[in-house]
Amino acid sequence: ARPRVGYFYTGKTSEQLLTENIQKLLVSDYYSRPVVVNENTSVYDAIVTMFTEDVGTIFVVDKLSLLVGVVSRKDFLRASIGKQELTSLPVTIIMTRMPNVAYCYLDELLVNVGKKLIEREIDALPVVKDSEKGLVVVGRVTKTNITKALVALHNEQMLS
Amino acid sequence: ARPRVGYFYTGKTSEQLLTENIQKLLVSDYYSRPVVVNENTSVYDAIVTMFTEDVGTIFVVDKLSLLVGVVSRKDFLRASIGKQELTSLPVTIIMTRMPNVAYCYLDELLVNVGKKLIEREIDALPVVKDSEKGLVVVGRVTKTNITKALVALHNEQMLS
Repeated sequence: ARPRVGYFYTGKTSEQLLTENIQKLLVSDYYSRPVVVNENTSVYDAIVTMFTEDVGTIFVVDKLSLLVGVVSRKDFLRASIGKQELTSLPVTIIMTRMPNVAYCYLDELLVNVGKKLIEREIDALPVVKDSEKGLVVVGRVTKTNITKALVALHNEQMLS
Repeated sequence: ARPRVGYFYTGKTSEQLLTENIQKLLVSDYYSRPVVVNENTSVYDAIVTMFTEDVGTIFVVDKLSLLVGVVSRKDFLRASIGKQELTSLPVTIIMTRMPNVAYCYLDELLVNVGKKLIEREIDALPVVKDSEKGLVVVGRVTKTNITKALVALHNEQMLS
């Protein structure tokens, strides 16, 4: 519905309103499905998965589907210009492993995820749920999701 | 200066104000310096440049410093798991070449860049200036810059 224009008064500055709109952006509205490989996967097979799924970051899970690590395109590129045989190198050797992996939850603010991505200089975070035995991977959030959120904030009004 | 609160009346909806704030974000406020290699560079040397400069996208220029192509980490990864000798493979073989390269200008809206990145499924655009002979590369804009813009929009108010 088109909001009624000309009768808007809240006693707030436009910057406050902007902040409130950004505060409404949650991970649950913008996350993507996760792409995971088992911890026994070779670097070569993980690279193939990265290309077939067309993602920049892959999550590594154990047999209980719990998060054990993260591998990025940069990690894969570093490994692939090295001298190792990629088909016999386990992905666990080149991944960033728990507890050094940054992650987030579905009900977290998207702008918080943006801060973590920038601070850590990474492209994606796993979205997790807590379980008794560890963290279960339920999604991923990337700089692409955040870019889409900014474009959507802009489009909502242009189209209304 | 702290805006005066409680006397704000514009006859605009909060969504309109949000759009106006996003419309103020220009490429010139958020771009990064470009990382370029000459078109005679090998794929191997370009990968080394990517790691030493810690960027995800490299621009390829000719001897007049005009844009001829773009190479991403994904292009490099594809090449490096192939059978070619990377030190003798020219970067021009694996790059996306003009006129198929998307680019932007300093005075363009950042949200427009976001749209181009999403439509083309790429991570970065070169920022260019027109010259008589072609496009001169003056910067790069990535999804990282856009993520920083969203975080900054949010922080501005939180810190004021």
